[in-house]
Amino acid sequence: MESIESLKDSLKDDKNREKKIELGKMLDKIKFNSQGLIPVIAQDVGTKEVLMLAYANQLALEKTMESGYAHYWSRSRKTLWKKGETSGNTQEVVSILVDCDGDALIYLVRQKGNACHTGERSCFYRSLWNAKMNE
Amino acid sequence: MESIESLKDSLKDDKNREKKIELGKMLDKIKFNSQGLIPVIAQDVGTKEVLMLAYANQLALEKTMESGYAHYWSRSRKTLWKKGETSGNTQEVVSILVDCDGDALIYLVRQKGNACHTGERSCFYRSLWNAKMNE
Repeated sequence: MESIESLKDSLKDDKNREKKIELGKMLDKIKFNSQGLIPVIAQDVGTKEVLMLAYANQLALEKTMESGYAHYWSRSRKTLWKKGETSGNTQEVVSILVDCDGDALIYLVRQKGNACHTGERSCFYRSLWNAKMNE
Repeated sequence: MESIESLKDSLKDDKNREKKIELGKMLDKIKFNSQGLIPVIAQDVGTKEVLMLAYANQLALEKTMESGYAHYWSRSRKTLWKKGETSGNTQEVVSILVDCDGDALIYLVRQKGNACHTGERSCFYRSLWNAKMNE
Protein backbone atom coordinates (compact mmCIF):
# COMPACT_ATOMS: atom_id res chain seq x y z
CA MET A 1 0.00 0.00 0.00
CA GLU A 2 1.21 3.45 -0.84
CA SER A 3 1.99 5.73 2.03
CA ILE A 4 0.03 8.97 2.39
CA GLU A 5 3.26 10.85 1.79
CA SER A 6 3.96 9.18 -1.55
CA LEU A 7 0.32 9.71 -2.55
CA LYS A 8 0.69 13.40 -1.72
CA ASP A 9 3.91 13.52 -3.74
CA SER A 10 2.29 11.91 -6.76
CA LEU A 11 -0.63 14.37 -6.57
CA LYS A 12 1.89 17.20 -6.38
CA ASP A 13 3.65 15.75 -9.43
CA ASP A 14 0.33 15.63 -11.27
CA LYS A 15 -0.35 19.25 -10.36
CA ASN A 16 3.11 20.31 -11.51
CA ARG A 17 2.68 18.42 -14.78
CA GLU A 18 -0.71 20.09 -15.29
CA LYS A 19 0.87 23.47 -14.63
CA LYS A 20 3.64 22.73 -17.16
CA ILE A 21 1.08 21.70 -19.81
CA GLU A 22 -0.93 24.86 -19.07
CA LEU A 23 2.23 26.98 -19.37
CA GLY A 24 3.15 25.27 -22.63
CA LYS A 25 -0.28 26.07 -24.07
CA MET A 26 0.13 29.72 -23.07
CA LEU A 27 3.60 30.02 -24.55
CA ASP A 28 2.30 28.51 -27.80
CA LYS A 29 0.16 31.64 -28.22
CA ILE A 30 3.20 33.91 -28.02
CA LYS A 31 5.70 34.89 -30.69
CA PHE A 32 9.00 36.10 -29.31
CA ASN A 33 11.06 38.18 -31.75
CA SER A 34 14.47 37.25 -33.17
CA GLN A 35 16.07 38.34 -29.87
CA GLY A 36 13.68 36.10 -27.93
CA LEU A 37 11.75 39.12 -26.61
CA ILE A 38 8.18 40.37 -26.65
CA PRO A 39 7.10 43.97 -25.88
CA VAL A 40 4.98 44.33 -22.74
CA ILE A 41 2.69 47.28 -21.99
CA ALA A 42 2.24 47.76 -18.23
CA GLN A 43 -1.20 49.27 -17.66
CA ASP A 44 -2.77 50.29 -14.34
CA VAL A 45 -5.72 47.92 -13.82
CA GLY A 46 -7.72 50.62 -12.02
CA THR A 47 -7.10 53.90 -13.85
CA LYS A 48 -6.15 52.24 -17.20
CA GLU A 49 -3.15 54.59 -17.40
CA VAL A 50 -0.32 53.17 -19.51
CA LEU A 51 2.65 53.14 -17.16
CA MET A 52 5.56 51.87 -19.25
CA LEU A 53 6.65 49.70 -22.13
CA ALA A 54 9.31 47.05 -21.48
CA TYR A 55 10.32 43.65 -22.82
CA ALA A 56 9.97 40.09 -21.55
CA ASN A 57 11.72 36.90 -22.57
CA GLN A 58 10.29 33.48 -21.75
CA LEU A 59 11.98 33.36 -18.35
CA ALA A 60 10.64 36.82 -17.37
CA LEU A 61 7.16 35.72 -18.36
CA GLU A 62 7.40 32.48 -16.41
CA LYS A 63 8.68 34.33 -13.32
CA THR A 64 5.81 36.82 -13.65
CA MET A 65 3.18 34.08 -13.79
CA GLU A 66 4.87 32.10 -11.00
CA SER A 67 5.26 35.02 -8.59
CA GLY A 68 2.38 37.29 -9.62
CA TYR A 69 4.84 40.20 -9.86
CA ALA A 70 6.01 41.85 -13.08
CA HIS A 71 9.36 40.62 -14.36
CA TYR A 72 11.06 41.93 -17.51
CA TRP A 73 14.24 41.43 -19.47
CA SER A 74 16.54 44.43 -19.24
CA ARG A 75 18.00 44.95 -22.72
CA SER A 76 20.65 47.38 -21.44
CA ARG A 77 21.78 45.29 -18.47
CA LYS A 78 21.08 41.98 -20.24
CA THR A 79 19.51 40.50 -17.15
CA LEU A 80 16.20 39.33 -15.73
CA TRP A 81 14.67 42.21 -13.81
CA LYS A 82 11.92 42.18 -11.20
CA LYS A 83 10.24 45.59 -11.43
CA GLY A 84 10.72 47.40 -8.11
CA GLU A 85 13.43 45.01 -6.93
CA THR A 86 15.59 47.95 -5.76
CA SER A 87 13.10 50.86 -5.71
CA GLY A 88 10.30 48.95 -4.00
CA ASN A 89 7.92 50.14 -6.75
CA THR A 90 6.66 46.67 -7.59
CA GLN A 91 3.87 45.76 -9.98
CA GLU A 92 1.39 43.15 -8.79
CA VAL A 93 0.07 41.55 -11.96
CA VAL A 94 -3.68 40.91 -12.02
CA SER A 95 -3.79 39.50 -15.54
CA ILE A 96 -1.83 39.19 -18.76
CA LEU A 97 -3.43 39.88 -22.14
CA VAL A 98 -2.03 38.86 -25.52
CA ASP A 99 -2.84 40.53 -28.85
CA CYS A 100 -4.32 38.97 -31.99
CA ASP A 101 -0.89 38.35 -33.55
CA GLY A 102 0.61 37.00 -30.33
CA ASP A 103 3.51 39.44 -30.55
CA ALA A 104 2.61 41.94 -27.81
CA LEU A 105 1.44 41.63 -24.21
CA ILE A 106 -0.31 43.76 -21.60
CA TYR A 107 0.39 43.29 -17.90
CA LEU A 108 -2.61 44.71 -16.00
CA VAL A 109 -1.00 45.78 -12.74
CA ARG A 110 -1.44 47.29 -9.30
CA GLN A 111 1.49 49.73 -9.28
CA LYS A 112 3.16 50.44 -5.93
CA GLY A 113 4.52 54.00 -5.94
CA ASN A 114 5.57 55.34 -9.32
CA ALA A 115 6.36 53.30 -12.41
CA CYS A 116 8.98 55.69 -13.81
CA HIS A 117 12.53 55.98 -12.47
CA THR A 118 12.21 59.79 -12.86
CA GLY A 119 9.60 59.85 -10.10
CA GLU A 120 6.69 60.34 -12.49
CA ARG A 121 3.73 58.00 -12.16
CA SER A 122 4.00 56.92 -15.83
CA CYS A 123 7.01 56.87 -18.15
CA PHE A 124 4.83 58.59 -20.79
CA TYR A 125 4.77 62.02 -19.14
CA ARG A 126 6.04 64.01 -22.16
CA SER A 127 3.87 65.23 -25.00
CA LEU A 128 5.58 65.14 -28.38
CA TRP A 129 2.78 66.51 -30.52
CA ASN A 130 -0.92 67.35 -30.37
CA ALA A 131 -3.57 67.99 -33.02
CA LYS A 132 -3.90 71.66 -32.03
CA MET A 133 -0.42 72.25 -33.46
CA ASN A 134 -1.89 71.73 -36.95
CA GLU A 135 -4.56 74.41 -36.54
CA MET B 1 8.39 97.31 -52.90
CA GLU B 2 7.50 93.65 -52.38
CA SER B 3 4.19 92.47 -53.73
CA ILE B 4 1.64 91.16 -51.28
CA GLU B 5 1.96 87.74 -52.96
CA SER B 6 5.73 87.53 -52.43
CA LEU B 7 5.27 88.69 -48.83
CA LYS B 8 2.72 85.93 -48.32
CA ASP B 9 5.13 83.42 -49.88
CA SER B 10 7.94 84.49 -47.60
CA LEU B 11 5.68 84.22 -44.55
CA LYS B 12 4.69 80.74 -45.73
CA ASP B 13 8.37 79.86 -46.11
CA ASP B 14 9.00 81.12 -42.58
CA LYS B 15 6.13 79.00 -41.27
CA ASN B 16 7.42 75.93 -43.12
CA ARG B 17 10.91 76.52 -41.74
CA GLU B 18 9.50 76.88 -38.23
CA LYS B 19 7.55 73.65 -38.69
CA LYS B 20 10.70 71.86 -39.84
CA ILE B 21 12.67 73.13 -36.84
CA GLU B 22 9.80 72.05 -34.55
CA LEU B 23 9.75 68.60 -36.19
CA GLY B 24 13.52 68.33 -35.84
CA LYS B 25 13.27 69.08 -32.12
CA MET B 26 10.58 66.41 -31.72
CA LEU B 27 12.54 63.78 -33.62
CA ASP B 28 15.57 64.54 -31.42
CA LYS B 29 13.61 63.17 -28.46
CA ILE B 30 13.05 59.83 -30.19
CA LYS B 31 15.28 56.79 -30.47
CA PHE B 32 14.45 54.54 -33.38
CA ASN B 33 15.78 50.98 -33.04
CA SER B 34 18.35 49.31 -35.32
CA GLN B 35 15.61 48.73 -37.90
CA GLY B 36 14.64 52.41 -37.77
CA LEU B 37 11.42 51.63 -35.90
CA ILE B 38 9.78 52.63 -32.63
CA PRO B 39 6.89 50.75 -30.95
CA VAL B 40 3.64 52.72 -30.78
CA ILE B 41 0.79 51.99 -28.36
CA ALA B 42 -2.57 53.14 -29.77
CA GLN B 43 -4.79 54.08 -26.84
CA ASP B 44 -8.42 55.30 -26.97
CA VAL B 45 -8.31 58.89 -25.72
CA GLY B 46 -11.78 58.56 -24.16
CA THR B 47 -11.96 55.10 -22.58
CA LYS B 48 -8.17 54.70 -22.16
CA GLU B 49 -8.47 51.20 -23.63
CA VAL B 50 -5.24 49.99 -25.25
CA LEU B 51 -6.26 49.18 -28.82
CA MET B 52 -3.11 47.83 -30.47
CA LEU B 53 0.66 47.91 -30.59
CA ALA B 54 2.34 48.67 -33.90
CA TYR B 55 5.55 50.26 -35.18
CA ALA B 56 6.41 53.60 -36.76
CA ASN B 57 9.44 54.72 -38.70
CA GLN B 58 10.30 58.40 -39.15
CA LEU B 59 8.14 58.71 -42.28
CA ALA B 60 5.10 57.16 -40.56
CA LEU B 61 5.53 59.57 -37.67
CA GLU B 62 5.84 62.57 -39.97
CA LYS B 63 2.74 61.50 -41.92
CA THR B 64 0.83 61.08 -38.65
CA MET B 65 1.73 64.58 -37.45
CA GLU B 66 1.09 66.10 -40.86
CA SER B 67 -2.31 64.48 -41.43
CA GLY B 68 -3.55 63.98 -37.86
CA TYR B 69 -4.29 60.32 -38.68
CA ALA B 70 -2.33 57.32 -37.40
CA HIS B 71 0.28 55.98 -39.79
CA TYR B 72 2.51 52.99 -39.06
CA TRP B 73 5.20 50.93 -40.73
CA SER B 74 4.01 47.46 -41.64
CA ARG B 75 6.86 45.07 -40.83
CA SER B 76 5.25 42.19 -42.74
CA ARG B 77 4.36 44.17 -45.87
CA LYS B 78 7.40 46.49 -45.55
CA THR B 79 5.35 49.53 -46.39
CA LEU B 80 3.94 52.71 -44.92
CA TRP B 81 0.45 52.02 -43.71
CA LYS B 82 -2.35 54.45 -42.88
CA LYS B 83 -4.53 52.70 -40.31
CA GLY B 84 -8.00 52.19 -41.78
CA GLU B 85 -6.87 52.90 -45.34
CA THR B 86 -8.81 49.90 -46.64
CA SER B 87 -11.14 49.06 -43.71
CA GLY B 88 -12.19 52.64 -43.01
CA ASN B 89 -11.35 52.11 -39.34
CA THR B 90 -9.12 55.16 -39.09
CA GLN B 91 -7.51 56.58 -35.96
CA GLU B 92 -7.69 60.34 -35.52
CA VAL B 93 -4.67 61.21 -33.38
CA VAL B 94 -5.32 63.73 -30.61
CA SER B 95 -1.80 63.68 -29.19
CA ILE B 96 1.45 61.73 -29.21
CA LEU B 97 3.29 60.94 -25.98
CA VAL B 98 6.90 59.80 -25.68
CA ASP B 99 8.37 57.83 -22.78
CA CYS B 100 11.30 58.76 -20.52
CA ASP B 101 13.82 56.82 -22.63
CA GLY B 102 12.44 58.12 -25.94
CA ASP B 103 12.08 54.59 -27.27
CA ALA B 104 8.30 54.10 -27.12
CA LEU B 105 5.30 56.22 -28.14
CA ILE B 106 1.59 56.45 -27.39
CA TYR B 107 -0.88 57.68 -29.99
CA LEU B 108 -3.98 58.90 -28.13
CA VAL B 109 -6.70 58.30 -30.71
CA ARG B 110 -10.35 58.57 -31.62
CA GLN B 111 -10.93 55.10 -33.10
CA LYS B 112 -13.47 54.78 -35.89
CA GLY B 113 -15.06 51.31 -35.77
CA ASN B 114 -12.84 48.56 -34.40
CA ALA B 115 -9.06 48.63 -34.14
CA CYS B 116 -8.55 44.88 -34.66
CA HIS B 117 -8.78 43.17 -38.04
CA THR B 118 -10.65 40.30 -36.30
CA GLY B 119 -13.58 42.65 -35.65
CA GLU B 120 -12.78 43.05 -31.97
CA ARG B 121 -12.58 46.56 -30.58
CA SER B 122 -9.02 46.01 -29.28
CA CYS B 123 -6.33 43.59 -30.47
CA PHE B 124 -5.79 42.59 -26.82
CA TYR B 125 -8.99 40.55 -26.45
CA ARG B 126 -7.37 37.32 -25.22
CA SER B 127 -6.39 36.62 -21.63
CA LEU B 128 -3.20 34.60 -21.27
CA TRP B 129 -3.06 34.38 -17.50
CA ASN B 130 -4.64 35.81 -14.38
CA ALA B 131 -3.65 35.90 -10.74
CA LYS B 132 -6.53 33.61 -9.71
CA MET B 133 -4.79 30.76 -11.53
CA ASN B 134 -2.15 30.77 -8.76
CA GLU B 135 -4.69 30.33 -5.96
